[in-house]
Amino acid sequence: MTDFFKGIDAISYEGADSTNPLAYRHYDPDEVVAGKRMEDHLRFAVAYWHSFAWEGGDPFGGQTFERPWHPQDSLDTAKLKADAAFEMFRLLGQPYFCFHDADVRPETGTFAGNLAGLQEMTDYFGTKMEETGTKLLWGTANMFSHRRWMAGASTNPDPDVFAFAAATVKSCMDATQALGGENYVLWGGREGYETLLNTDMGQELDHMGRFLSMVVEYKHKIGFKGQILVEPKPQEPSKHQYDYDAATCFGFLQKYGLEKEVKLNLEQGHAILAGHSFEHEIATAAALGVFGSIDMNRNDYQSGWDTDQFPNNVPEVALCYYHILKAGGFTTGGTNFDAKLRRQSLDAEDLLAAHVGGMDVCARGFKAALAMLDDGGMEQALAERYAGWNTPEAKAMFDSDLATITQRVLDDEINPEPSSGRQEQLENWVNRFV
Amino acid sequence: MTDFFKGIDAISYEGADSTNPLAYRHYDPDEVVAGKRMEDHLRFAVAYWHSFAWEGGDPFGGQTFERPWHPQDSLDTAKLKADAAFEMFRLLGQPYFCFHDADVRPETGTFAGNLAGLQEMTDYFGTKMEETGTKLLWGTANMFSHRRWMAGASTNPDPDVFAFAAATVKSCMDATQALGGENYVLWGGREGYETLLNTDMGQELDHMGRFLSMVVEYKHKIGFKGQILVEPKPQEPSKHQYDYDAATCFGFLQKYGLEKEVKLNLEQGHAILAGHSFEHEIATAAALGVFGSIDMNRNDYQSGWDTDQFPNNVPEVALCYYHILKAGGFTTGGTNFDAKLRRQSLDAEDLLAAHVGGMDVCARGFKAALAMLDDGGMEQALAERYAGWNTPEAKAMFDSDLATITQRVLDDEINPEPSSGRQEQLENWVNRFV
Amino acid sequence: MTDFFKGIDAISYEGADSTNPLAYRHYDPDEVVAGKRMEDHLRFAVAYWHSFAWEGGDPFGGQTFERPWHPQDSLDTAKLKADAAFEMFRLLGQPYFCFHDADVRPETGTFAGNLAGLQEMTDYFGTKMEETGTKLLWGTANMFSHRRWMAGASTNPDPDVFAFAAATVKSCMDATQALGGENYVLWGGREGYETLLNTDMGQELDHMGRFLSMVVEYKHKIGFKGQILVEPKPQEPSKHQYDYDAATCFGFLQKYGLEKEVKLNLEQGHAILAGHSFEHEIATAAALGVFGSIDMNRNDYQSGWDTDQFPNNVPEVALCYYHILKAGGFTTGGTNFDAKLRRQSLDAEDLLAAHVGGMDVCARGFKAALAMLDDGGMEQALAERYAGWNTPEAKAMFDSDLATITQRVLDDEINPEPSSGRQEQLENWVNRFV
Amino acid sequence: MTDFFKGIDAISYEGADSTNPLAYRHYDPDEVVAGKRMEDHLRFAVAYWHSFAWEGGDPFGGQTFERPWHPQDSLDTAKLKADAAFEMFRLLGQPYFCFHDADVRPETGTFAGNLAGLQEMTDYFGTKMEETGTKLLWGTANMFSHRRWMAGASTNPDPDVFAFAAATVKSCMDATQALGGENYVLWGGREGYETLLNTDMGQELDHMGRFLSMVVEYKHKIGFKGQILVEPKPQEPSKHQYDYDAATCFGFLQKYGLEKEVKLNLEQGHAILAGHSFEHEIATAAALGVFGSIDMNRNDYQSGWDTDQFPNNVPEVALCYYHILKAGGFTTGGTNFDAKLRRQSLDAEDLLAAHVGGMDVCARGFKAALAMLDDGGMEQALAERYAGWNTPEAKAMFDSDLATITQRVLDDEINPEPSSGRQEQLENWVNRFV
Repeated sequence: MTDFFKGIDAISYEGADSTNPLAYRHYDPDEVVAGKRMEDHLRFAVAYWHSFAWEGGDPFGGQTFERPWHPQDSLDTAKLKADAAFEMFRLLGQPYFCFHDADVRPETGTFAGNLAGLQEMTDYFGTKMEETGTKLLWGTANMFSHRRWMAGASTNPDPDVFAFAAATVKSCMDATQALGGENYVLWGGREGYETLLNTDMGQELDHMGRFLSMVVEYKHKIGFKGQILVEPKPQEPSKHQYDYDAATCFGFLQKYGLEKEVKLNLEQGHAILAGHSFEHEIATAAALGVFGSIDMNRNDYQSGWDTDQFPNNVPEVALCYYHILKAGGFTTGGTNFDAKLRRQSLDAEDLLAAHVGGMDVCARGFKAALAMLDDGGMEQALAERYAGWNTPEAKAMFDSDLATITQRVLDDEINPEPSSGRQEQLENWVNRFV
Repeated sequence: MTDFFKGIDAISYEGADSTNPLAYRHYDPDEVVAGKRMEDHLRFAVAYWHSFAWEGGDPFGGQTFERPWHPQDSLDTAKLKADAAFEMFRLLGQPYFCFHDADVRPETGTFAGNLAGLQEMTDYFGTKMEETGTKLLWGTANMFSHRRWMAGASTNPDPDVFAFAAATVKSCMDATQALGGENYVLWGGREGYETLLNTDMGQELDHMGRFLSMVVEYKHKIGFKGQILVEPKPQEPSKHQYDYDAATCFGFLQKYGLEKEVKLNLEQGHAILAGHSFEHEIATAAALGVFGSIDMNRNDYQSGWDTDQFPNNVPEVALCYYHILKAGGFTTGGTNFDAKLRRQSLDAEDLLAAHVGGMDVCARGFKAALAMLDDGGMEQALAERYAGWNTPEAKAMFDSDLATITQRVLDDEINPEPSSGRQEQLENWVNRFV
Repeated sequence: MTDFFKGIDAISYEGADSTNPLAYRHYDPDEVVAGKRMEDHLRFAVAYWHSFAWEGGDPFGGQTFERPWHPQDSLDTAKLKADAAFEMFRLLGQPYFCFHDADVRPETGTFAGNLAGLQEMTDYFGTKMEETGTKLLWGTANMFSHRRWMAGASTNPDPDVFAFAAATVKSCMDATQALGGENYVLWGGREGYETLLNTDMGQELDHMGRFLSMVVEYKHKIGFKGQILVEPKPQEPSKHQYDYDAATCFGFLQKYGLEKEVKLNLEQGHAILAGHSFEHEIATAAALGVFGSIDMNRNDYQSGWDTDQFPNNVPEVALCYYHILKAGGFTTGGTNFDAKLRRQSLDAEDLLAAHVGGMDVCARGFKAALAMLDDGGMEQALAERYAGWNTPEAKAMFDSDLATITQRVLDDEINPEPSSGRQEQLENWVNRFV
Repeated sequence: MTDFFKGIDAISYEGADSTNPLAYRHYDPDEVVAGKRMEDHLRFAVAYWHSFAWEGGDPFGGQTFERPWHPQDSLDTAKLKADAAFEMFRLLGQPYFCFHDADVRPETGTFAGNLAGLQEMTDYFGTKMEETGTKLLWGTANMFSHRRWMAGASTNPDPDVFAFAAATVKSCMDATQALGGENYVLWGGREGYETLLNTDMGQELDHMGRFLSMVVEYKHKIGFKGQILVEPKPQEPSKHQYDYDAATCFGFLQKYGLEKEVKLNLEQGHAILAGHSFEHEIATAAALGVFGSIDMNRNDYQSGWDTDQFPNNVPEVALCYYHILKAGGFTTGGTNFDAKLRRQSLDAEDLLAAHVGGMDVCARGFKAALAMLDDGGMEQALAERYAGWNTPEAKAMFDSDLATITQRVLDDEINPEPSSGRQEQLENWVNRFV
C-alpha cells in the first residue's frame, strides 16, 4: 500500500440524494438496464497517462503535482506509481484501464532498455491485474514525447525512426496481448506536419498506410483477438495531423485497404478541435462502419487546444451515448477517460472526485439515452421524415438515371413543397430525458 | 451596349510601375513563361453569380447594389445582365467564366419554367461567347437558394426533391455541354444537416453517392468531355456539409467507387473554414490524385463565415500555385474568382478593379512559384530530407514486418538522432521569391 | 383574430411529467421562489424581429417562411403581423416583448415616412398592450438593414447618416417611452469596420461616444425612466464591431464618461463569438457594475456566425442565472429570446414550441441556480479560497508598496505553497443541482 | 567565446540579390529613410527566453534542443548561456534584447536565492552590454512558470503570492533600471482564471489594479525613466486572461486611473488569439493613446494556441508598421521578436537564420509602409471619405441634440445616399507597395 490515497474509502453507490463528494450518485455498476449491468454497458477505463504520469505542466509552466513516484526515472518509481494506480482502480472499482509504454516504464534512451523496462512492468501489471480484477481496455505506444519522434514516427523522413516505431509498436502489442487487452490503439500525434515546406505528404501517407498494414498483419500473426483502433485528431502537437477526423480516417483506411480491419477510437475533445460535435463523429463513424471506442473527455469550447477535461455536461453526453446505442453499443470498445486534472487540482481527492464525477455524468447520460430510445420519439420522427423513400417509385428512381427522372419531373409536374424540420420540437423532446 | 461600364476602357497590361488603377501591372496574358502564355497557365474565370447576380445582402442587411438589371425577375433583365457581364469579360479580357442556372435565368417556381429560361439563356450565352471568345470554365446548378432545397437536394428526405435535383443537374449539364464547358461542378451547400436530431446520415450519404454516380453516368451517356468536380466546404449554410474538405471528399468518392471519375474544385475560403491552409487542400488533393480546379477567393482569417474576398496576399497565393505546378498545373481546371465585392463597393469601377487586382496578385504569385521551382531549393531540401528512404535497406523494410524490423533494431542498436527540420530557413528561402 | 395560430390553445403549466409538447413542464409563472413569482424573476420577453419579421433567409438562400403578413410592405400587413404577434403573446403568456422600429412598420425610404408608420404602429401596439397586458421590455432602432446604414450609423463617414440615425433613435426612444418600455437598447451592428484601410477608428469612436451621450441627454430631457443598454457583439455583419464584448464596452463607456448612465444587454451568442462563455460576460459586467439585461439565445459552438438559437442546455443556463442572481437579479432587465427558429421550422407550432422549450430550460436553470445559492457550497469555497485577504497583514499590504513588501518577503522568508483549486470538485457540486 | 556559433560570421547586409542564407537582404541598419537610420526606426530586440532558455518542449513532447548550457540549473550554465546570447547579439548586430528574471538565473526555490542570482547575472549582463553595445529594450518578471504562480501572481487568492510577486517585480524593475532598460513589461499569463467556479473576478481585478499602481508608484520612486507596458493576451495558459486585448486593457487602466501612466506591448500572435488582426490592435491602441511597443511574432492562423513564429508575411507586416508610423513611430518601444524556433529547428544556424529572416521581413514591410505614407493615397482617400465632418453644419450637429437634429432631418428631408467604400481599390493600392 502506498500512502497516496490514505484515508480514502472505496467509492460506492449512494444514490442521487447523496451529498458525499466521494460517492457515486448515478453510477451503480450492478444496476441492470436494457438487459445488462451498467458496468458492462459503459465499460469505464482510467487513463494511466493523465492520472499518473502527467506532472501538471503546460506550455507556460512546469510541474505542479508532487507525487511520491516523482521523478519517474527508475523501475522503482514505476512500480510505486503502479501501486498507486491499482489502488485507485480498487477505490473507483472501474473495470478497465489503458496505458502507453512510456507511462509505465522509465525512458532509457535505447530500444533495448525500454523493451526490458516494458517487459518487467508488464509482468508487474499482470500480477496486479490478477489480484484486483482490473482489465486492460487498450494498450498503445507513446511515439510523440521523446525527441526522436519530433518529425513523426511512421511518417518520419528518417527510415531508422520508422524502424524504431515498428519495434516499439510490436513491443506494445505484445504487452497488450500478454495483459489480455481488448483493443490496441494508435494515435499519431506527430504523424502529420509542422510545415508543408519540408513535407512530402504523398510519401508520408504511403508510409503511414504501410505501417498500419504491418500492425494488422502482426495482429493476425500473433492471434491478437482485440480490435485495432486509430484515434483521429486534427492537430496539436502537429500543425496538421493526417488522422484529422472520422471521415478523413475512413478515406485513409479505404486507400490502404484497411477499412474492414481497423476502427476508430473517438474523443470528444478531438472532435471539437476538428470543428465537430462529438455526436457527429460518433454518428459518422457508425454510418461508415468504423465505430470502435471512445475517449470521453471534453474540451473547453473557448480554448483552441486540447484541454482533456472530465465530462460534466449531461445533455451532451446523453446524445453521444444515444448514437452509440443506435450503433449497437460497445463491443470491444468502452468509455475511457483520457482526461486530466486541472493542473491546480493538486490532491489525491481531486483525482478520485474527477473520476467519480465523470462516471456519474456518463451514467446519467447513458440512462437518458436509453430512455430516449425506449420512448422512440426521435426514431419515429426520423422514420416519418424519410418515409417517402420507402415507396416503390422512390426505390425505382434510385436505380434510374438523370434523363428518366427528368422526364418524370416534367410529366408529373413534380414541384415539392418543403415541410418543417421540427428541430426545436426535437430539442424539446430531448430535454424531457436529460 | 449597356451603360453600366460606360466610359471605362478595356484593361491592358502596363507593367509594374503603372499607377493606373484599371491596368494590369503583373498579368500580361501573352507573356510566355515555362513554355506557355500566362493566360493558358492561369486560366482565369469570372463567377457570374457574385459579380452579376448577388445584390449585396448579408445576414443583417438587404440589397446595396442597384444595377440596371434589378429586379432579376424576367428574361429581359436576365439578358441585360448577360450584356453587362459580357461587356465586363471584354474589358477584362479573361478567357473564362462560370455560372449557376439560377444566376442566368429568372426563377419561375416550376422545373419546366426554369428549364425554358435556362435554354433560352443558353442560346443567348452561346451567341455572346461566339462574339467575344469568352469560354465556359464550368457550369453548375444552384440547389441551395430556393426554399425547395432547404433540407438538401440529393440528400433531401423527400424523394421528390431528389427528382427535382436530378432534373436540374441534367439541365445544367446539358447547358454546360452546349456551351463547351470544360468542367461541371457540384457544390452541395445544403447536402449536410442542420441538426443530427432529424438526420439519417448513412441514408443521406448513400443518396448523395447514388446521385453523383448518376451524374457520372449521364456524363458518359452524352459524351461530355469535361471533368466532373465536387467542391468541398465544411459548413455554411448547413451546420455540417458532407463534402467537408479534400480528405473527406476523397473518402466519400472511394466509398461510392468514384475516385477515378470525379476530382475536386478547391476554394481558399472553404479551406480556411475547414481549419486548413489553401496549400494544404491543394497538396492533399494532389497527393490523393483528385486535384481539379480552384476558386481563388480568400476568407478573412478573423471571420467565421465565408467572406469570398478577392485574393490580395501574394506570398499565400504563391504557395498555392507552387503546389498546383508541382501537381502538373491545370488541365481542365483554372483559376476562378468565386469572389464577391464587399457590399459597400457599389460602383462598376469597384467590380473591375477587384478583378484586376485579383488577377495581378495571382500573376505575381504564379511567377514567384515558377521561380521557386526553377531555383529548386525547396525540392532539393525535400529530396535530402527523405533520402534515407532510397537505400535498399529502407526499401526492404517497407516490405518487411514488425518482428523482422524489431530484430534489426535490436541487432543494429538503431537509435536515430533527430536532425533539423529547417522550417525557418525554408520560409526565408520562399521570401526570396515573393 | 388571425388564422395563424388557429386551433392552438394557450400554453399552461402541466408539470415535469407532461408529454404535451405545447405545455410548460418547468415554468410555472406563479410559482413563488425566493420570495417572488417566477414570472417576476425571469421577466421573459419575445423578440418581435426574429419571430415575426424574419422570413427565413440565410446567406445562401431566401425566404422559407410564408406568413399571412408577407410581403411586409404596408401598414395593413404590419397590423396583421401585430395581430398575430399579440396572439402568440396571449398563447405563451410571457410578460414582455421587444422590437425594432423596422420590425413593426414598413420601410418607406424616407425618415418622415418611417416616422409616420412608427407612430401609427405605436398607437396600434399601445391598444394591443392594454388589451393583453403584455409589456415592453425594451425598444430599439434597426440601423443596420437598410443600405443607408451600410457604412455605419453614428460612425458613418457621412454626417447626414449620423443625422438620420439621431432622428431614428429619437423616434424609437419616443415610441419606447410611449409604450412604457423599461429599457432602451442600442446594438451597433454596423458601428465598426469592414476594413481598416478606409477607417479612422479614433474619429469613429468619438462620434459613437458623442452619439451615445446625446441618447443619455435625451433620456433625461424627456424623463424616460428606463435604463439605456448597449449590446456587445464582436463582429458580424461588420468584420469588427466597436462594442466587442463587456470589457470593451466598459472601456468605451468610461472614455466618454457614461459608465454610470449606461449598462449592458448581454447575449449568449455574442459571448461565444467573442471567445467567451456567457457566464463570463455576465460576471464581467457584474464585476464592472454594468450588468443590465440578457438575450438568452445560444450560438452553435461549431458555427462561426450568430445562429441565435433558443437555449436548450440547462447546465449552461443555470450558471448564467447563478451569476445574475449573485449580482442581485434583474431590475429593469429581463430574459429576452433574441432567438430565431431554424429556417426549416416552418410551422406556427414550431414557433410556439421553441418559446415553450426555451422558457422551460430557463426555468429549470433558474431553479437550479437558486438551489446552488441556497446550498451555499460554492460561495463557501470561494470565501475559504480568498480568506487570506481578510487578515490585517494582507489588508495592510494592499496599501503598502513594493519595497516594503519586498522587505517583508525577505524578513519572513515568505515562500507560498500552492493549494488545490478543486475545479473538478466544484463541477461535481454543480452537477448535484442541474 | 562559446563554441555554439563557431564558424559563423557576423551577419551583414548584402542586398536583395544575395543568396547567402545568413545575410541581410533588406535590413541595412545604416540605411537612412525618413530622416533616421533603419536601426533607429525598427529598434529590433532579441527575446532571451525563446532563443536561449526554451528547450523545445510542447504539450506532447519534451526537450529537443540540446544546448551546451543545459541543464539550466546553476549560475555557471547561466553565464555560459549569457555568453552564447551575447555572441548571437554580436553576430546579428541588433541593438536590443529583452529578458525575464527566470531566463537568466537558475530557480532556487526561494525569493532570496532568486534575488541573489538575478543580481549576479545583472552585473554579468552589465559588463557584457558595455562590451558589445547591446541595449535592453525591456525587462520583465516571469510569474507564470513556477508552480507557486499556478493560480495567479497579483490575482492569486493567497496574499503571500501577491507579496512574492511584488518582491519579484521590484527586483526585476531594479535590474531593468540598472541595465538602462527603456521599458518595463508586465504580461499576466496567469492573471485570469481556469474556471469561474472558484474565482472572484471583481476582487482579482482590484488586486491587479492595486498591484499595477504599486509598480507605477515604484517607478516614480526610483526615478525609472522607462515606460511601463502591459501586454494583452486573451488566454493560454489561462482559460481567460484579464488583459484580453488592447481595448480591454484600456478599460482596465481607466478603471484604476492608470491610462496616462501605462501603455501596451502588443503581439501579433496574441492579437490573432483574441480574434483580431495585428493592425487592429495597433490602431486601437493608437486611437486610445496607449500604443507602446510590439512583439513581432506571428501565430499560425490554423492553430488555436500561441505558436510564436518569426514573421514571414511582408504584406501583413507592412500594414502593422503603417499604423505604427501613423501613430508617430516608436519612442521607447521597439520591434521585439518574442518568437521561438520550431522545436525541430535544432541548429545554431536555424536560430540565426530565423532572426535574419524576421528582420528582413520587417525591413521590407517597414519600407513599404513608408512608401505608402509618402505616396499618401490611403490618407487622401480617408480624408475624402470623412470630409463631410469638416463642414460647419456637421460640427454644429456634434454639439447639438437628438431633437434638434430630428427637426433638421425633417425640414431638410435628409436622405443620405451611400457611396462606395472602395475596399478592393484600396487593397490594390496597398499591393503596389508590398
